[in-house]
Amino acid sequence: MSDPSRLDAQIAFLTEADRLKSVTRANTLCDGSRYENSAEHSWHLALYALVLGEHAPDGVDTQRVIKMLLLHDLVEIDAGDTPLYAEADRAAIAAAEKAAAARIFSLLPADQGAALRALWDEFEDGESVDARFAKALDRFQPPNQNLASDGISWRDHDATLAQVETRVGWPITRGAPALWDWILPKIRDWFARNG
Amino acid sequence: MSDPSRLDAQIAFLTEADRLKSVTRANTLCDGSRYENSAEHSWHLALYALVLGEHAPDGVDTQRVIKMLLLHDLVEIDAGDTPLYAEADRAAIAAAEKAAAARIFSLLPADQGAALRALWDEFEDGESVDARFAKALDRFQPPNQNLASDGISWRDHDATLAQVETRVGWPITRGAPALWDWILPKIRDWFARNG
Repeated sequence: MSDPSRLDAQIAFLTEADRLKSVTRANTLCDGSRYENSAEHSWHLALYALVLGEHAPDGVDTQRVIKMLLLHDLVEIDAGDTPLYAEADRAAIAAAEKAAAARIFSLLPADQGAALRALWDEFEDGESVDARFAKALDRFQPPNQNLASDGISWRDHDATLAQVETRVGWPITRGAPALWDWILPKIRDWFARNG
Repeated sequence: MSDPSRLDAQIAFLTEADRLKSVTRANTLCDGSRYENSAEHSWHLALYALVLGEHAPDGVDTQRVIKMLLLHDLVEIDAGDTPLYAEADRAAIAAAEKAAAARIFSLLPADQGAALRALWDEFEDGESVDARFAKALDRFQPPNQNLASDGISWRDHDATLAQVETRVGWPITRGAPALWDWILPKIRDWFARNG
């Protein structure tokens, strides 16, 4: 038997989540027509996990990764998106994101809010194999968008090959080395032609 | 060991999928600021499934439902979105969507394309308990967006209470009756005030 008061809280959360569609990211769609928002980015990442699960290291539970990726950017409703190549106070951002997580997950019934918050914390910590794979996908999608759009956000931020190899390469290598082996030559080729 | 030629095909699929972010739907965001696109809608529905799984009928596998919902609108890249309250040739749309599914899923490695196509076919057929729950969520989210935005897409299409009860009520009752019990009084109340 469903509990209507739980549904009230759950729909309040899902309606609040709608605001993620209005958070703009630094990378564009593949066709370069506009910047991506964090909600459609989250969908794309969940689809990445569904399709690329076979390239995950042993022990990764793709279903948990999909859940993490559906939730991972909700905190940006309050804290905004921080572009990968921007100078930023990372400690202040982390604090703002934790405050956002406390507010947003508390809209849910307490037991469910705690469970989903724990999944978000696991993603943020980035230590479990599932979180590492999720974070690797979060870093792997933007360079694919860049390669498809002839490097729009790399050009926007005057990114260098060294920056890409550090800020993108390290988390991808840590969570999904096969994906880094695949994309690195393509990134190097782009910077050789445009760097 | 990952197979790079499979990755080539998988990234081609994921890059093609990016185009779903440019397919516009008939309902707006909750704040009414713009119309929703089908990619962010798919994210929102997957989040609905994650949060509302406890209200599903016995036997529903929420993980499978999430996968279905991530995939369910990809055919709109070719076939576009058909508003629920529009007059339309439903047979022609179904044919266009089947052709789109054949094209889009064939971008993947054959075994994976067949598996994901089977999941899409199951959603389209709408007969399994998982597909019924997925379709119920696909019908349940737009009235929530309408209630939050004071009925923008109902007003746009001059929708009547009888239309909503038929086109939305039937699939929700079939796949997730608890959700219909919850929302029906809210819909009736809105039409009583604005009908």
